[in-house]
Amino acid sequence: MELINITLPDGNVKQYPKGTTGLEIAQSISEGLMRNVLAAKINGEIWDATRPIFADSHLQLLTWKDTEGKATFWHSSAHLLAEAIEALYPKTKFGIGPAIEQGFYYDIELPDGKMLSQEQFEEIEKKMLELARQKNTYQRTEVSKADAIQYFTEKGDEYKLELIEGLTDGQITFYQQGNFTDLCRGPHIPNTGFIKAVKLMNVAGAYWRGDVTRKQLTRIYAVSFPQEKELKEYLTLLEEAKKRDHRKLGKELELFTFSENVGMGLPLWLPKGTLLRERLENFLRKAQVKAGYSPVVTPHIGSKKLYEISGHWEKYGKDSFQPIYTPEEGEQFLLKPMNCPHHCEIFASKPRSYKDLPLRLAEFGTVYRYEQSGELHGLTRVRGFTQDDAHIFCRTDQVKDEFGKVIDLVLYVFRSLGFSEYTAQVSIRDKSDLGKYLGDPADWEMAEKGIEEVALEKGLNIVIEEGEAAFYGPKLDFMVKDALGRKWQLGTVQVDYQLPKRFKLEYIGADNQKHCPVMIHRAPFGSLERFIAVLTEHCAGDFPLWLAPEQIAVLPISEKYHEYAHQVLTALEESDIRGYLDERDEKIQRKIRDAEVKKIPYMIIVGEKEQAEGRISIRKHHEGDKGSTTLEDFIGQFKTEIAHVKQ
Amino acid sequence: MELINITLPDGNVKQYPKGTTGLEIAQSISEGLMRNVLAAKINGEIWDATRPIFADSHLQLLTWKDTEGKATFWHSSAHLLAEAIEALYPKTKFGIGPAIEQGFYYDIELPDGKMLSQEQFEEIEKKMLELARQKNTYQRTEVSKADAIQYFTEKGDEYKLELIEGLTDGQITFYQQGNFTDLCRGPHIPNTGFIKAVKLMNVAGAYWRGDVTRKQLTRIYAVSFPQEKELKEYLTLLEEAKKRDHRKLGKELELFTFSENVGMGLPLWLPKGTLLRERLENFLRKAQVKAGYSPVVTPHIGSKKLYEISGHWEKYGKDSFQPIYTPEEGEQFLLKPMNCPHHCEIFASKPRSYKDLPLRLAEFGTVYRYEQSGELHGLTRVRGFTQDDAHIFCRTDQVKDEFGKVIDLVLYVFRSLGFSEYTAQVSIRDKSDLGKYLGDPADWEMAEKGIEEVALEKGLNIVIEEGEAAFYGPKLDFMVKDALGRKWQLGTVQVDYQLPKRFKLEYIGADNQKHCPVMIHRAPFGSLERFIAVLTEHCAGDFPLWLAPEQIAVLPISEKYHEYAHQVLTALEESDIRGYLDERDEKIQRKIRDAEVKKIPYMIIVGEKEQAEGRISIRKHHEGDKGSTTLEDFIGQFKTEIAHVKQ
Repeated sequence: MELINITLPDGNVKQYPKGTTGLEIAQSISEGLMRNVLAAKINGEIWDATRPIFADSHLQLLTWKDTEGKATFWHSSAHLLAEAIEALYPKTKFGIGPAIEQGFYYDIELPDGKMLSQEQFEEIEKKMLELARQKNTYQRTEVSKADAIQYFTEKGDEYKLELIEGLTDGQITFYQQGNFTDLCRGPHIPNTGFIKAVKLMNVAGAYWRGDVTRKQLTRIYAVSFPQEKELKEYLTLLEEAKKRDHRKLGKELELFTFSENVGMGLPLWLPKGTLLRERLENFLRKAQVKAGYSPVVTPHIGSKKLYEISGHWEKYGKDSFQPIYTPEEGEQFLLKPMNCPHHCEIFASKPRSYKDLPLRLAEFGTVYRYEQSGELHGLTRVRGFTQDDAHIFCRTDQVKDEFGKVIDLVLYVFRSLGFSEYTAQVSIRDKSDLGKYLGDPADWEMAEKGIEEVALEKGLNIVIEEGEAAFYGPKLDFMVKDALGRKWQLGTVQVDYQLPKRFKLEYIGADNQKHCPVMIHRAPFGSLERFIAVLTEHCAGDFPLWLAPEQIAVLPISEKYHEYAHQVLTALEESDIRGYLDERDEKIQRKIRDAEVKKIPYMIIVGEKEQAEGRISIRKHHEGDKGSTTLEDFIGQFKTEIAHVKQ
Repeated sequence: MELINITLPDGNVKQYPKGTTGLEIAQSISEGLMRNVLAAKINGEIWDATRPIFADSHLQLLTWKDTEGKATFWHSSAHLLAEAIEALYPKTKFGIGPAIEQGFYYDIELPDGKMLSQEQFEEIEKKMLELARQKNTYQRTEVSKADAIQYFTEKGDEYKLELIEGLTDGQITFYQQGNFTDLCRGPHIPNTGFIKAVKLMNVAGAYWRGDVTRKQLTRIYAVSFPQEKELKEYLTLLEEAKKRDHRKLGKELELFTFSENVGMGLPLWLPKGTLLRERLENFLRKAQVKAGYSPVVTPHIGSKKLYEISGHWEKYGKDSFQPIYTPEEGEQFLLKPMNCPHHCEIFASKPRSYKDLPLRLAEFGTVYRYEQSGELHGLTRVRGFTQDDAHIFCRTDQVKDEFGKVIDLVLYVFRSLGFSEYTAQVSIRDKSDLGKYLGDPADWEMAEKGIEEVALEKGLNIVIEEGEAAFYGPKLDFMVKDALGRKWQLGTVQVDYQLPKRFKLEYIGADNQKHCPVMIHRAPFGSLERFIAVLTEHCAGDFPLWLAPEQIAVLPISEKYHEYAHQVLTALEESDIRGYLDERDEKIQRKIRDAEVKKIPYMIIVGEKEQAEGRISIRKHHEGDKGSTTLEDFIGQFKTEIAHVKQ
């Protein structure tokens, strides 16, 4: 019997008979593993776990824990959905049915112009689970183009026929499970039995091949899971995420709005959102100044020449907002898509010595980047946003130290904002192709090693990704996990050996010679817009006390106590506490309820007793009555509560 | 003898013989006045004071105190300059010689290609004064076009001939003083004796009629005065203004810079300038929030449609930065030249009630306006600037009150920044053409009266200018006088009845009906850029302590005291005092001198004695040694010194 060598992810090499499948290898390791294997990654390519392996290979067994395992599971679930629909509605025609980020969809056309609605969801789900329980295997068959055409001609599915037209004979495969056969490249899970829970989410119209001149098909969105429990968790999370959606909360809490006349993807910050934004900006600014950054302010446009020097024009010009011409003098400007070229010009504005380095120029710089209107999403994908940007100009030997300081700053901010779970990714060179990177290999070596070391020293949970570095330098990316366990990619700390060269930046070294500085781009939160979106969803609109746009609602029980309430409000304002007075002619219960809806952290209630005693009654958001106290004591406690943040 | 009625500025009417001159009327009032009269304003037109008056007229006698009197004086001085040059350099040809804002110039061509340089200035000045002492009268003669042509043909001055070509026969006048005759519309001062002091400032090339394809003439710039003392004062002021030029100080104090690659007129704010700017912005922001403004943030671009609605596109579009096209989807955006349309969209973002008014939306909004490169000047004339902008949406009956609040705010800021002299101009309708103004006349009446009343109530020194209102509303302009006595026009408070209509803004009134709000635009300082320029020149770079980018220099006497100096600096920083440590290996005298040059308000000197006693020695900028104290006491005094400003 001929044997092949299978190299496992831990580097171990095992021998198996030629023609062994991934599933069999899993079984050889443990029965438990076998039950969980969804697909196999063979030399970087994803295969059916049931497909025989004929040569020495690197193998990774994919389960639900792997993104690619999930994708395979959902793609197979799309076939199951199609099978169920065909069973319930014979003569249905099928378009395409891929896995997506969360679940999968299938574009279908029901016979006789029938329409599908949510009422039929339960019937389809039931049929899917019934078919799943049959544990039908996904059978892969290679077919000739002629046979493929014949099959779908007989079936009468012109969509599949059109897809086959574009394929090369000899590379066409069908997959069959139960009575359903689909044109499909694969891979698939071993059998339908893995699918234990399904949920159809919604239907939408979708033009065939995304072409508005073609027929509109019905797109069915769905999710599926290997366990019923996971579906339940997913639906709960979805419900919670919907409640926390920053677009919904942004509207309810009056943080921001959009206007068609101003333009899509260009947020208008309303007064409360502006207070929040200013507060966050001030907090970051103070932390940065403390960490040795120098704030600068630069214009939102730059001459086209600036971006020709930086290389941005050549690389991104045609996909960007187009040049702004002057009415006379033939000048051309661009909306700035990033702040670095402007900061390079500031570095170049006077001679620099090695003693001046590191020079850390920081700017809350608003930049504009064109995105297709379909790509825009609330504050997380916009056309204009304010970066918490800075550029550190330093010597090669200072890179590690500077990374350490950036990490300190980021962790300080995470703590202040209630994010306790975060990870970081260090992107380094592809060791097998070192030639494609710009800059001195010794500098790269030092930087990569330095970043990794200092990240570990700072206790960061890091992943090293080889080959993920940009050609001009290694980088560090931050990711936070929010209260719902969702991961958000925030900003980046990026070493750059290229831009300082393009701008011919230089400093005089200790050796009295001219040297080119290294540049570190860092916008650890990416943008204020994105960060506020993430923070809003993380804390469900219950912002940390120090950040809340309105910290206190002063609620007089009736008009008689308005004057006393005013005194209270004035005293709060004099202590830099942000409050408002609810003077409406409403019952106190109503005022409390409204303040709760507005997520005001504290309520101060004043009535006859309070006025007579010169005291105030306190309620806390979510927590209710906290008893009465003096205004002075309350202000003291309040200050203590927010003292950990330098505002 | 026939008499005519002369109405004087105070409304008094006096009778004089027909053919009386302004000068004779002056003499009839007082000999002193006669000696000072430079010209006469007859029914709004400026005449020679020596020209006979033949009909009933309104008369204003112009002296050196009047802008128009000064202009006449300088124009006559230009003729005197020409006379002196002709006397010294016969056959010189003359172009034009007008009065300008400060002084006058004459464009000349010396015979035989001779050039003029500063060495000849003294000789010319001497000749001018010699001719002035002759007290030659300026004789006005009406000449026919033929005679005028004959005169200058004989004289051989082709420039004057070209000018005559463009004139209408019957409207041509010559003026002659001494041996010099010029083609001139006038008016002029009575005689050259009024001119007691002259100073040639510089020479420059100037193309004939501003046409680069024509000959380049020599332009001589000069000033003149009715008293020697005034010239001396002027030259001192000029010297002082040069020292205070914000472009010079901006460079020396490292406040801002410009870069050709970024673009002309687009300032890059350096770290120290940014600190100053941020501090000023925060100060204004706090004052505004206290005054009931709500801060907002809006993008720096808006769709073209927004400016079509506002009317800006139609009116200014072709002279502005041109539209920004998107690479796909065919959208067009404009750099925002003002913030009002964005703020209108925020007003319109939700239903408003009369109880919500006034709504005051404030933004430090950076706007971009195209200016020809030749018009640009430091920070006072730029292409991008940040307005201290706000828009007040209110009811008609709230306009007066809102103006009062704006005046309070402006005066508070003036006081905090050391401006003690300021005036304001109220611009109202042209009463003879009320039809051209938009909006309800009753609202205008109320607004105009209200603005005037409240300005007087607030003790403002105002001038009412009839006919200066915009067609869409009356306004109030602020002017400050700086330490050199120069007047600077700052921003404007402008009522607007039009824009809210264009944006179809509305609120529900107490009557439950829809109403359109009035809008008040106000940017009382115009822009941060302009304001910082004015402030820099006003205080000659010695910024008020609370605003200084660096407030304290900590100067250790030698390296031995660096550690103690660090402790001092840290303590200052913890008290939010902005300082730096001069650790250079330099003598203390040198460190003090450098801190003086950098205009640092306080210096803290630490040496052996200070370290041993745990004290510090204080020096104050311009004032020198202030003795020793404890750090704690110093910080206390420092805080008291800046306590009047809410930062």
